[in-house]
Amino acid sequence: MKSIEWKNGKVRIIDQTKLPGKLVFLDISDIGRMREAIKQLKVRGAPAIGAAGALGLYLGIKDSRAAGYAAFRAELGRKADYLASSRPTAKNLFWALSRIIRAAEGHSGFPPEKIKKVILNEALAIISEDVASCAAISVNGARLFKNGERVLTVCNAGALATAGCGTALGVIYKAHALGKIAKVYSCETRPLLQGARLTCYELRNNGVDVTLICDNMAAALMAQGKIDRVIAGADRIASNGDSANKIGTYSLAVLARYHRIPFYIAAPVSSFDFSLRSGAGIPIEERDPFEVTGMFFRSPAAPSGTKVYNPAFDVTPAGLITAIITDRGVLKPPYPDKIRRLAKKAGAR
Amino acid sequence: MKSIEWKNGKVRIIDQTKLPGKLVFLDISDIGRMREAIKQLKVRGAPAIGAAGALGLYLGIKDSRAAGYAAFRAELGRKADYLASSRPTAKNLFWALSRIIRAAEGHSGFPPEKIKKVILNEALAIISEDVASCAAISVNGARLFKNGERVLTVCNAGALATAGCGTALGVIYKAHALGKIAKVYSCETRPLLQGARLTCYELRNNGVDVTLICDNMAAALMAQGKIDRVIAGADRIASNGDSANKIGTYSLAVLARYHRIPFYIAAPVSSFDFSLRSGAGIPIEERDPFEVTGMFFRSPAAPSGTKVYNPAFDVTPAGLITAIITDRGVLKPPYPDKIRRLAKKAGAR
Repeated sequence: MKSIEWKNGKVRIIDQTKLPGKLVFLDISDIGRMREAIKQLKVRGAPAIGAAGALGLYLGIKDSRAAGYAAFRAELGRKADYLASSRPTAKNLFWALSRIIRAAEGHSGFPPEKIKKVILNEALAIISEDVASCAAISVNGARLFKNGERVLTVCNAGALATAGCGTALGVIYKAHALGKIAKVYSCETRPLLQGARLTCYELRNNGVDVTLICDNMAAALMAQGKIDRVIAGADRIASNGDSANKIGTYSLAVLARYHRIPFYIAAPVSSFDFSLRSGAGIPIEERDPFEVTGMFFRSPAAPSGTKVYNPAFDVTPAGLITAIITDRGVLKPPYPDKIRRLAKKAGAR
Repeated sequence: MKSIEWKNGKVRIIDQTKLPGKLVFLDISDIGRMREAIKQLKVRGAPAIGAAGALGLYLGIKDSRAAGYAAFRAELGRKADYLASSRPTAKNLFWALSRIIRAAEGHSGFPPEKIKKVILNEALAIISEDVASCAAISVNGARLFKNGERVLTVCNAGALATAGCGTALGVIYKAHALGKIAKVYSCETRPLLQGARLTCYELRNNGVDVTLICDNMAAALMAQGKIDRVIAGADRIASNGDSANKIGTYSLAVLARYHRIPFYIAAPVSSFDFSLRSGAGIPIEERDPFEVTGMFFRSPAAPSGTKVYNPAFDVTPAGLITAIITDRGVLKPPYPDKIRRLAKKAGAR
């Protein structure tokens, strides 16, 4: 089950809004539908939307009639901006779009038709590198686990969120394969229930024992001694280690600290924003109140006109993170120096 | 709007499962329907189910044909046990049923027809005393607030949860009337959304500015400095101050402590269980997994057969509670001595 792949000249994604009820594949052949798919969370998860953005940009430029490089480069920039306006928080989207543009710029002496091929190859490289990143994260993270552990996770940082086996769930899969996981608890992750819909789906399909809880039950589980570790993905990590992830992640980090439970972030280097000194600079997407009030049988869940605050992400300060598990190794506090070294390596690539 | 009243020989309640969409009143005339109404949360909130239990017991015994006291008392005990089996956590239910039985026992020399009248009067006294208790809690609690405060609450501890104006929301109403409340944030309170459905409904009807959030957003709000105080009701308070309340309350208490925000429990003396040394002895109701997985449009919210842990309550240790606001005054730590004195006063009544 691949969350995103290039197939017969189209981008095939799983429509994640239909899970777990139906497994529906969408074949996307134009940039507009790709932007909508990202915006509507049909494809979601920071690494997956990076891959989707890269392939979406190729879809947007592949039929370009620009005669020379300058016109082609201008069109590429406009199309990249258009895709970049879909969702603001995940770094991987901007990282992937920039990488495509840099690849094009590296071939400015070539005709547009040739650059189009370079762009497709770069997008496909982003996907294959993400597969490798997930595998590396999984191995690096699984080493931190002991045998028979009960692990809590939030949202979905699995195969559905990446082109590979996942980040946080990749670590769980690998640790499970090594016999280290006794049980996983999945926070349902309101408002859009990625934990209930996607993480339970993935883990059950892969034979991992998973129990679903509401987000407000995590603290009680911790107090009962039922959680050994907490692991989450990230949408953007600042240079000091502050990590933005799905709303509720920060809450789990505070609760884990109070209960002296290790709390990990698992993410590839492409989720790091080396330009930001701290999490204060990470833009936090606010989404439609209907996501909070309108999803229930007994609609509406709140009186008509009720004010709603619906941030899609929060920022966990570096000080609450026991370790950041990356594809280039496991970072432990203090983070700034280690992230600076990571930036140098990543930049040198 | 009264959540429970005695009217034309029946118990009139608001069917709270229908709110906020419809305001439906139910006239209940037999004990079986009352037990179901409590079990299905048509009437809920610790003080309200105390009142419902007392009137329900009268409904169960009013047509008794028991000829003498012994038979009548035995039947009363069976009916009380039947009602007591509806929900395990809220102390007020058991408190109210015991109080009815004690009233009957105090009139053992009288014929059953006379004792029935005593029972009805005792049940009505429980209701009118709860109205007075809510008013006293409101006044006692509102004194703790300063001007212009932003308050977070969870579940519904308002008029819909009591026979009066509420406990936690009673305090908010009173503080609001004194101009002390700038804004209330209501946690939606998964799985059954009492915060979204009932608290937003009540507060809006009473002109209090309320904003709805998902439970996992509370920590982010606290980190942003948007919360000055947290206040919740209680279903049962042990002798050491440990307080059981709706699941998620403990989570808020830990988060409030981390962010140095005062955290209050507001409850009448009838919610105290003086027989319990600590919260470890409070039975925690676990409810149907369907409450977690089955309430959404895109049913199911999780794959069929997903394991679910669905505790309806959690226990907040006394050490995390800044003050317990009661109808007999505000208790501050250390609690055990003060609760012992409260027990003496309550017992002497």
